[in-house]
Amino acid sequence: VRVAVLSGGVGGARFVQGLLDAVEPSGVTVIANVGDDLEVYGLHVSPDVDTLLYTVGGEADLERGWGRRGETWRARDAATQLGAETWFQLGDRDLGLHLARREALDRGEPLSAITARFARTFGIEVRILPATDDRLRTWVATGEGELSFQEWFVLRRHEPEVQGVRFDGADTAQAAPGVVEAIAAADLIAIGPSNPFVSIGPILAVEEIREAIRSRRVPSVAVSPLIGGKAVKGPADRMLKNLAGGTGPEHVASCYQGLIDALVYDEADRDVSLPDGVRPIATSTLMTDAASRRRVAEASLEAAAALR
Amino acid sequence: VRVAVLSGGVGGARFVQGLLDAVEPSGVTVIANVGDDLEVYGLHVSPDVDTLLYTVGGEADLERGWGRRGETWRARDAATQLGAETWFQLGDRDLGLHLARREALDRGEPLSAITARFARTFGIEVRILPATDDRLRTWVATGEGELSFQEWFVLRRHEPEVQGVRFDGADTAQAAPGVVEAIAAADLIAIGPSNPFVSIGPILAVEEIREAIRSRRVPSVAVSPLIGGKAVKGPADRMLKNLAGGTGPEHVASCYQGLIDALVYDEADRDVSLPDGVRPIATSTLMTDAASRRRVAEASLEAAAALR
Repeated sequence: VRVAVLSGGVGGARFVQGLLDAVEPSGVTVIANVGDDLEVYGLHVSPDVDTLLYTVGGEADLERGWGRRGETWRARDAATQLGAETWFQLGDRDLGLHLARREALDRGEPLSAITARFARTFGIEVRILPATDDRLRTWVATGEGELSFQEWFVLRRHEPEVQGVRFDGADTAQAAPGVVEAIAAADLIAIGPSNPFVSIGPILAVEEIREAIRSRRVPSVAVSPLIGGKAVKGPADRMLKNLAGGTGPEHVASCYQGLIDALVYDEADRDVSLPDGVRPIATSTLMTDAASRRRVAEASLEAAAALR
Repeated sequence: VRVAVLSGGVGGARFVQGLLDAVEPSGVTVIANVGDDLEVYGLHVSPDVDTLLYTVGGEADLERGWGRRGETWRARDAATQLGAETWFQLGDRDLGLHLARREALDRGEPLSAITARFARTFGIEVRILPATDDRLRTWVATGEGELSFQEWFVLRRHEPEVQGVRFDGADTAQAAPGVVEAIAAADLIAIGPSNPFVSIGPILAVEEIREAIRSRRVPSVAVSPLIGGKAVKGPADRMLKNLAGGTGPEHVASCYQGLIDALVYDEADRDVSLPDGVRPIATSTLMTDAASRRRVAEASLEAAAALR
C-alpha cells in the first residue's frame, strides 16, 4: 500500500508511527508542514519536520513532548547569560542538527534533500518531505495584531485568539520534489490529526499540492485532531470554534472541502451529518501507545478500503 | 597609567593578564585582531576577541589552550553525525556565546558594542575593542594557493609555508569606535607578543590605527613572540624566517618600522643591533604563571618609563 500523509508535528507524527506498524514503511511518504519554520540565531528551525525526524527516528523526548531525547541546555544557558532571547529553546543536540542544516542550506542543498539525508542517518525508512523547499510562513491575525506563528504559539503561548491565518510565500511556493508524485502514486491520501488551520493549512496553501489532492483518483481520509470537541494538545479547538464555527466533526470536515472522502473522528464526538461525499468513521482516536496509534491508522486504512 | 595594547589571541591575552596585575585595569584598552574571524554555520566567530574575553574573564580552558572551560561537545557531535564539517570546533558553551553574538549582529549591534557587553557580563574591567567593526579577513598565500586564515591555520594545521599575507577589507575598514581615541589618550602603546604578520598585521592594516600609532607622542613598546628564535606556540618563527628573513629580535622589530621605540625580547635571543630608535630590552619573556606574566608587563612599562 502506498500512502501519502499530510502531517504537522506531534499528533501527525504519532499517526505516522501507527501507520508504520500497519503498512510497509517504504510505501509511506509524509508531507510535512513548514509554515512553522523560523530563523533563530540565523539557524533554520523546521519544528514539524524535526518532530517527525525525531519521533520516527527514535530521537524524540517523549516525556517533555518536544525536542531530542537525552538533551542538555548548555548553549542556551550560555546564550541567556549573554543577553540573548531564548524563548525558542534549542537544546545542545538539537542545535547540532541545526548547525548541520545551516551549513547544508548555505552550500545550496534544499531542505528536502537535507531532510532525506538526516532521515537516512536516523535509520528512518519512511520518506519525510517538507511540503515545499521555498519560503512559506504562517502568520496569525489576532486582536493584538498579526504575529508570526512561533511568536504567537511559543512566546505568547497561543493565548491571543486567532481571527485568521495567512501563509506568506504560498502564492509562489512550489511543492518540494517528490510531493506531487507521491500524492499521484498513492493508494491512499491521509491527513493526520493535526491542526487544520496552522498545520495542514500551510501544506494545502501550496496550489500544486491542493490540486493534486483535489484531482485524486484514490480515497482521501482525514483524522480529526479533536476528542469530544477538545484538542489533545494546542489551540485546534479554539481555532475551529473561531474560524469554522464549532468543534464538531462537521467543522473539521469543512476545513477540507473537496479534499477528503472520509473523516475519522472520536466516538466521544456527537454523531452528525458530514458534508456530502464525506463518510463518517467514529472510533477511539486517542493515541497513547503503539496499540492505540495503530488502531487509528488501521481505521483510516479500512475507511479507504471501504471507499475503493 | 593609560595603556593601549594591540593583541592577538593566547600570547597577547597572557600579556594583558600580566598588565592587569601591574596597572589599574580601568586604564587599559586592548585592541584585538579580527583578521582571524570567520563564519561557521552562519555564526560569526571572532577567535582572538573570544580568547581575550575568556582569558581575562576567567572562562578560558587553560589545559586545552583554547575555548571555554568546563566545555562539552554535544552539539558538535550531533552535527558531525549529520554530516557537517566540524574541523572548526565550537563547544556547547562557546556556541552559546556565538548564538548571542549572531542575534545581536542581526539586530544591528556592532561587534565592538557586543564585545563590551559580553565583557561586562564576564566581569571584565579592562576595555576590549575589536580593531574594526568592519569586515577584515586575513588570507594567506601558500605554495598550494591562497587560503583563508582559518583554513590554513586550523584545517591545514598551518603546514603550508606562507609566502605572503593579505588583509581583505583593510582598504575600507575603519577603526572601531574608541580605538583611535584610546591610542591618542594612552601614556604607553604596547604591542603584545603575538604573531606580527597574522595577529598584529591585520590591526595595523587599518590605516587609521597605523597612523594613530605612527604619529604617537608617547612611547610604543613591542614584545617579541619568539624565545631563542622559536615561537612558544604557532607558526610565528617560520613566518618570520620566510617573510622577514630571520628569527632574531631585529627581524621582529622590522615588522614594526616607525611604530615602536623599544622591543622587549628574550634573554635567549642573541644581542643584536636593532633599527635606529628601537631600544633593546632583554628579559625572560616566557609567561607560564602570574609572576612571569607580570614580569613581562613590567619590563614593557619600565622600558616606556625610561623612554619618557
